[in-house]
Amino acid sequence: MPVYQAPIADTLFVLNDLLGFDRHNNLPGFSDASPDIVEAILGEAGRFATDVFLPLNQIGDSEGCRRADDGSVTTPKGFKAAYDQFREAGWGGLSADPAYGGQGLPHTLAAAVNEFLSSANMAFSMYPGLTRGAIAAIQQHGSPEQKQRYLPKMIDGVWTGTMNLTEPHCGTDLGLLRTKAVPQGDGSYKLSGQKIFISAGEHDLSENIVHLVLARIEGSPEGTKGISLFIVPKFVLDEAGEAGARNMVSCGSIEEKMGIHGNATCVMNYDEATGFLIGEADKGLRAMFTMMNEARLGVGVQGLAISEIAYQNAVVYAKDRIQGRSLSGAKAPEKKADPIIVHPDVRRMLMTIRAVNEAGRALILWTAMKGDLSHLAEDAGERQAADDWMGLMTPVIKGVLTDKGFENAVLAQQIYGGHGYVREWGMEQFVRDARIAQIYEGANGIQALDLVGRKLALNGGRAVQAFFQEVGAFCEEHRAVEAMAPYTKALKKGLNDLQGATMWLMQHAMAKPDNAGAASTDYMHLFGLVALGYMSARSAKVAQDKLTAGANGDAAFLEAKLVTARFFMDRLMPETAAHLARIASGSDSMMSLNEEAF
Amino acid sequence: MPVYQAPIADTLFVLNDLLGFDRHNNLPGFSDASPDIVEAILGEAGRFATDVFLPLNQIGDSEGCRRADDGSVTTPKGFKAAYDQFREAGWGGLSADPAYGGQGLPHTLAAAVNEFLSSANMAFSMYPGLTRGAIAAIQQHGSPEQKQRYLPKMIDGVWTGTMNLTEPHCGTDLGLLRTKAVPQGDGSYKLSGQKIFISAGEHDLSENIVHLVLARIEGSPEGTKGISLFIVPKFVLDEAGEAGARNMVSCGSIEEKMGIHGNATCVMNYDEATGFLIGEADKGLRAMFTMMNEARLGVGVQGLAISEIAYQNAVVYAKDRIQGRSLSGAKAPEKKADPIIVHPDVRRMLMTIRAVNEAGRALILWTAMKGDLSHLAEDAGERQAADDWMGLMTPVIKGVLTDKGFENAVLAQQIYGGHGYVREWGMEQFVRDARIAQIYEGANGIQALDLVGRKLALNGGRAVQAFFQEVGAFCEEHRAVEAMAPYTKALKKGLNDLQGATMWLMQHAMAKPDNAGAASTDYMHLFGLVALGYMSARSAKVAQDKLTAGANGDAAFLEAKLVTARFFMDRLMPETAAHLARIASGSDSMMSLNEEAF
Repeated sequence: MPVYQAPIADTLFVLNDLLGFDRHNNLPGFSDASPDIVEAILGEAGRFATDVFLPLNQIGDSEGCRRADDGSVTTPKGFKAAYDQFREAGWGGLSADPAYGGQGLPHTLAAAVNEFLSSANMAFSMYPGLTRGAIAAIQQHGSPEQKQRYLPKMIDGVWTGTMNLTEPHCGTDLGLLRTKAVPQGDGSYKLSGQKIFISAGEHDLSENIVHLVLARIEGSPEGTKGISLFIVPKFVLDEAGEAGARNMVSCGSIEEKMGIHGNATCVMNYDEATGFLIGEADKGLRAMFTMMNEARLGVGVQGLAISEIAYQNAVVYAKDRIQGRSLSGAKAPEKKADPIIVHPDVRRMLMTIRAVNEAGRALILWTAMKGDLSHLAEDAGERQAADDWMGLMTPVIKGVLTDKGFENAVLAQQIYGGHGYVREWGMEQFVRDARIAQIYEGANGIQALDLVGRKLALNGGRAVQAFFQEVGAFCEEHRAVEAMAPYTKALKKGLNDLQGATMWLMQHAMAKPDNAGAASTDYMHLFGLVALGYMSARSAKVAQDKLTAGANGDAAFLEAKLVTARFFMDRLMPETAAHLARIASGSDSMMSLNEEAF
Repeated sequence: MPVYQAPIADTLFVLNDLLGFDRHNNLPGFSDASPDIVEAILGEAGRFATDVFLPLNQIGDSEGCRRADDGSVTTPKGFKAAYDQFREAGWGGLSADPAYGGQGLPHTLAAAVNEFLSSANMAFSMYPGLTRGAIAAIQQHGSPEQKQRYLPKMIDGVWTGTMNLTEPHCGTDLGLLRTKAVPQGDGSYKLSGQKIFISAGEHDLSENIVHLVLARIEGSPEGTKGISLFIVPKFVLDEAGEAGARNMVSCGSIEEKMGIHGNATCVMNYDEATGFLIGEADKGLRAMFTMMNEARLGVGVQGLAISEIAYQNAVVYAKDRIQGRSLSGAKAPEKKADPIIVHPDVRRMLMTIRAVNEAGRALILWTAMKGDLSHLAEDAGERQAADDWMGLMTPVIKGVLTDKGFENAVLAQQIYGGHGYVREWGMEQFVRDARIAQIYEGANGIQALDLVGRKLALNGGRAVQAFFQEVGAFCEEHRAVEAMAPYTKALKKGLNDLQGATMWLMQHAMAKPDNAGAASTDYMHLFGLVALGYMSARSAKVAQDKLTAGANGDAAFLEAKLVTARFFMDRLMPETAAHLARIASGSDSMMSLNEEAF
């Protein structure tokens, strides 16, 4: 069975040393998150992940969820008891609004905890994960009464939430959706239609399930301008706000999937189900995007999370498995062969995963803190800049960290050789589970289009220019420091490629939009490399400073940071030039085949 | 259910136009393979793949193989009947020696047919695939009597074969193997030990299973110098050469795997099983490599095969699924949305797969023909050159085409969005099936080491120098032709990067072998890009010449070749520079972390 230890030390390095979490202790939430408290929470979360979530990961995969003829869904053995423990420990409300029973800690901390739980059991952690998205939508768009009625139980976890967007004929293009909402005159609506791919759509973990459903009010315009968001509870609330009568929403079937078998992916049938409008009529897409942004960062975290647990197990195997001798002479002459970690090609795979994970963790927490600051910072300019960063990085984190997460799971599996292909070792499950993160919450091609087609040009390119400026200034500031030169030189080269690609887009995409589409995925990955490289270089700088100042006891940790960041520059950053070359080749050879020629 | 149509037109283009198959019609085998015959065989093979193998692909995956308590193994429903059809149609003996009942056609043709069958059902096609490897070993290393006793039934298919190399504690490092062979004085041996991951190790398709088993004769040296190869039939042959007494070899269990469920992957227990030495004592590794080279090319074909069927289905979906509008204006205004094939990012994925498949098919058949010529060519120099090419390209084809095959299956799955993650569509099976090809028959890291550590330096680098010379001369010859310039320019740039990387290795790997190990995977992929790019550019040249000469009716096909090759140069070749940069960064950042730091 796979092992897992939450990367507490690395998370603390990011929070304390890289982000300077403590600097913000004048802000609500942050003031309750002193370094001691943070360390205690992370430690407890790590234990919880390992002790409660991890043992159910393979069981969840092999058993899966089962739907009975009456439409009820049973989660795998042990899930219900573990969910109760999760709820009682209060993990679901860590960063939720204290006005509704939450603990009000920074979302940054919740993101760190979410990584641990997702590593230990991604399918399981999706149940509370979707609830968090639903909470965010109600918090932001619900009426005071809706908040009062739904949030406390959802934050407590006794109720869970879902997002209902996709229909059989529409996923990406929500303008095509057909689910219909008919006003009843009493403020409520009757919803009819079918939704598919609804994660956690039906299950036995909670007493009620609060579905957030996109539908078109009868008479509303076609396309995306006629879409509204509704609350459709599995059990309609009675006067007292308790789960009352069973609503006409039911699970028609559950999908047989490649992975995340522990999570029930449901076809949900709405048959004149009672629903309540949330936010304004026909403005549902905007409200939905509140959930989506939350969810997209959460999916990026999943990419990191699977990559981390896959890495940890690959390390164990690479140290244990003996096979062949080091090219530079036997390293374990007392054994019949050396552990395979001596082989450069095994190192290449381990270091690749490690370098991406450490930079990815930094980027996620850095961005999550921007999310917190976008609400909490005292200065309006700082709030705006934080919000800009958050919007810009959301598609990058979702798209790049899930692509890398999957690739890394594949690399970790490769280290196991044939054993990686066999179920009992658990490595192939990581690959199957990681795969969904590239697809759901907007396939990664959609993330790339969001970045290139929307985020780049927003507010006259303010966000992207600020990013270029920040990274450029960092390179400039440290280029004279000899110890930093290997990092800043590679980063600057990557930044130049990214700026070159941005310039190319400005010159070629207006007149010919296909050039933007043809560039999008490469551009997103190019952007991701520079953002991750920036995190790597900053981490190296912090590590150098701490080593210079005389690190107490964690010198080995800090020196490893330097090596890992160096590996990032040597082995990952060279890809930026290839991305630029592909982008600059334009869309001609991509688009000129006739459809019939395929 | 996935669809499949064998790519007959493209295969004929490669054989007839690119390879000039007909030029060799003075040689044995080739003389029976006139263009008409080749076309008829390919057509029949394609139909057989679609009609007989394809319908069993998803059934094989969902049912898998089952082992009963007596150790017998049942293949999925329909496999036995389909195997009988396969056998009766004579597909197993297509290129086998006529002296033992084979049809003696070129191996090149068998490779093409193998692609079709592997596309339609990879797990199934492994049963005859492993038999082919065993036939090759007996043909090359067996005694005349062994050939007489085993080959006719194996070529007929009434008996099948396996390769038994791996043991629980040794896969890559066969020197560690423990299976023991004790001479019995009558020329036979008793073998005892355990082998794992034995594909097609036990099943109900054939009347006997001829296991080729690596073992150490009692008293032989430790390590690789004491390994011998044995024939261990499931039923020991009687005097008449018929399957006789049950031998003491049995299937202890079958593995639960990520994919290829239709093939039984067995733990094989040898308990004083009767075996017969094949070839010389202690020279088993050499004999085994005969099987391995055959098998490695076959695994490269699997990479292409899965990539091809995944592509075909992704094309169908991309033309059918409507979602969103083209960036350059509605393409199907009569529909509510455009088919997703109009979107550049979907095209990017389709064109990537297509470009690799067409170049990969050319490289496989080109190399298979070198394999034929290495035996058959009249001129000794030509035989040697062909053998050089074959040895050099074997690890490249295995390593690169299986990595690309997997990546392409993932891309094709991505085009389906959420439906790609659901079992019924069949796309996720392609991903799971393709994954094994990167692992078995020598994990791809081992292929890379074989290329860098062995093949490059062989005979003073004769093979690699000949390759550089050939590709360089092609670029030189066509660089003045304007229509060819986009191809030769990109190819020449790639070749320069490859030569630069080779030079770097010569300068840096001798003194520090870790530099070779650290470079190996990048070098293999760099080599692969140049080899595939060469095939692309040559295909473009042939297409241009045919178009200039006035193509009859296939102008659209030829023009698509030009676009696809152009896409290869625009979008795939830029990666060569990134590979070179990574290689030239050396092994320092890869190797300098202490083992404890992981």
